[in-house]
Formats: sequence, C-alpha cells, structure tokens
Amino acid sequence: MKQKTDDKTEILEAMARWRRALEAKDVEGLTADYAPDAVLFDAIPPYKVVGVENIRKAWEQCLPHMPEFRAEHRDVVIHLGEDMAVVHAMHRFNPVQADHPCGRNWIRVTVTYRKMEGAWKVIHEHVSMPFNPMDDKIWPIRNLETLDTPDYGCAGQPLEDS
Amino acid sequence: MKQKTDDKTEILEAMARWRRALEAKDVEGLTADYAPDAVLFDAIPPYKVVGVENIRKAWEQCLPHMPEFRAEHRDVVIHLGEDMAVVHAMHRFNPVQADHPCGRNWIRVTVTYRKMEGAWKVIHEHVSMPFNPMDDKIWPIRNLETLDTPDYGCAGQPLEDS
Repeated sequence: MKQKTDDKTEILEAMARWRRALEAKDVEGLTADYAPDAVLFDAIPPYKVVGVENIRKAWEQCLPHMPEFRAEHRDVVIHLGEDMAVVHAMHRFNPVQADHPCGRNWIRVTVTYRKMEGAWKVIHEHVSMPFNPMDDKIWPIRNLETLDTPDYGCAGQPLEDS
Repeated sequence: MKQKTDDKTEILEAMARWRRALEAKDVEGLTADYAPDAVLFDAIPPYKVVGVENIRKAWEQCLPHMPEFRAEHRDVVIHLGEDMAVVHAMHRFNPVQADHPCGRNWIRVTVTYRKMEGAWKVIHEHVSMPFNPMDDKIWPIRNLETLDTPDYGCAGQPLEDS
C-alpha cells in the first residue's frame, strides 16, 4: 500500500501547489501539472478550453480581474487507480475583503490525472455550478451540508445524503 | 492492445445502453452500471447526489416530466487506464416534437468508471452547462463548433480549439 499512499500524497500536494499558485496569480504555477492536451470544461464560457496553452491564456485574462483571496478545497475525494486518478471536490475563493461577491459560492470540481513518466498530470478538468431549470440561473451552493433544490416537479422531495 | 480495445468497446456499449434506457425512461437500466456509492454532480440541484439509490430516485422524479426524445452523445473522448477510465463527452436530448425546449442545448458530461470484478462501473459523474458570470444565467451550448464567450473582461478574446 506504500505506492498508493505516495500517490495520494502527491495528488494532495499538487492540489496545494495549485491553490498557492492561484492565490499568487501565478499562471505558470497553475498549469505546471497539466498535460499539453488537457481539456478544461470550465464554469464559465467557452464551454471547453483545449490544450494547456489555451488554459494558460484563459487564466491570464481572468486573474487580473480577481481580488486578493485565499483558495480552499473541501470534501476532497480521491479515486486512485494504477495509472489514473480522479479527484472530486468543492472549491471556494475566500476574498480577503470579506464582502466581495467572489466568495459567495462553492463550486464543484472534478479533476482527472494520468501518471506520465512517474508524475501525475491533469488531462481533464470539469468545473461547474448547478442551474435552476425554472429560470436558467445558477443555483448557488452557499452551504455544503444543504442539498436543497428549487421548487420544481422534477425533484420535488429532498434527496438524503448518505 | 486487445484488452484496451475490449475495454473501450465495453465502455461505448455501456454508454449506448444508458442512452437506450434514458429514451425508454427505464430507471433500472439507467443505473445498472453504477457503483453503490457513486456520486453525481448533476446539471440541476441538488449540487450532489450520493449513492445509486438516490440517483435512481432523482431519475424517478425527473423522467415523468420529460417528453419523448432520442439521446445523443458527441465528441466522446475515452481516457483508458488499467483499472479506471474517464469519458468526457457532449450530450443532448433530441425531442421527437422538434420545437420542445428540452432539446435546445448540449450539456457537458464527465463520467468516471472503475473496473470492479471485471465490469466497468460508474463511480462519479459530473454534468453541467457553463454560466455567464455577468448575469448568473446558463450560457447555452447550441453549436459544438462555436467556442463563444459573453462580453466580459475575464475572457475577452476567443480561445482557439486545437
């Protein structure tokens, strides 16, 4: 089980490096662990970003508009395979200026890694918020413990967590 | 490479079975290939659905409200590992009644499989549309070839596909 423990530690370390790079608005650091042909399904358009060069450009355009913040992951689940790993987690920007709108909501993240020449590289990332089909607006996740839904016929009763 | 080819075929077959079950509104079929503790990040709230029983309940509540349709996957990419696989793809409902709003948009899907006792089982699924941060509404994907963005400072110039 030694290798499994090492792999898990390496992925947690990669996530911690990514958070620090995000806080520092360091684009090179943010994409250091991405494979050249990684595909990002980001929370905001375009609906897909293909290749690490374009992912880097998207961050370069975005980061100057963001306030100073601390990045936080919660509910991190790591599925570890022999040569692939998938992490799903919740992510939040915590702005230093407490009332900044940037920190209102949690966001869902699924990251796929492949082991390449001994190192875990991101090959796919999917980031999103759910939306309310009644008005096509995002359904904000303010509290991770609350599995609430809009009042629609399609999911009328609460689903229990387990 | 025989095993790799077989694995890919098995996953494509599982996706085809899922589409047929969806079209037939067959909840048992829809969840036949899910692990008991699968976690779904669905396009609509709640933000996560934990466990195949709850995934089944979500479908049971949803399916009666849906029109008759054909399910379609496009841009399917399968990342195959030794014991895990990740598929990302675009999915669409094509209603038989052509002007039904249900068929307007493509939706992004990322499915994580683990090989369990020789069979590929879904352990995690992430389904979403991007949203426009300027008005918090979904950014519809009507055309897979168009990587358009809202007019915001954060991603002002088009990103090239590659």
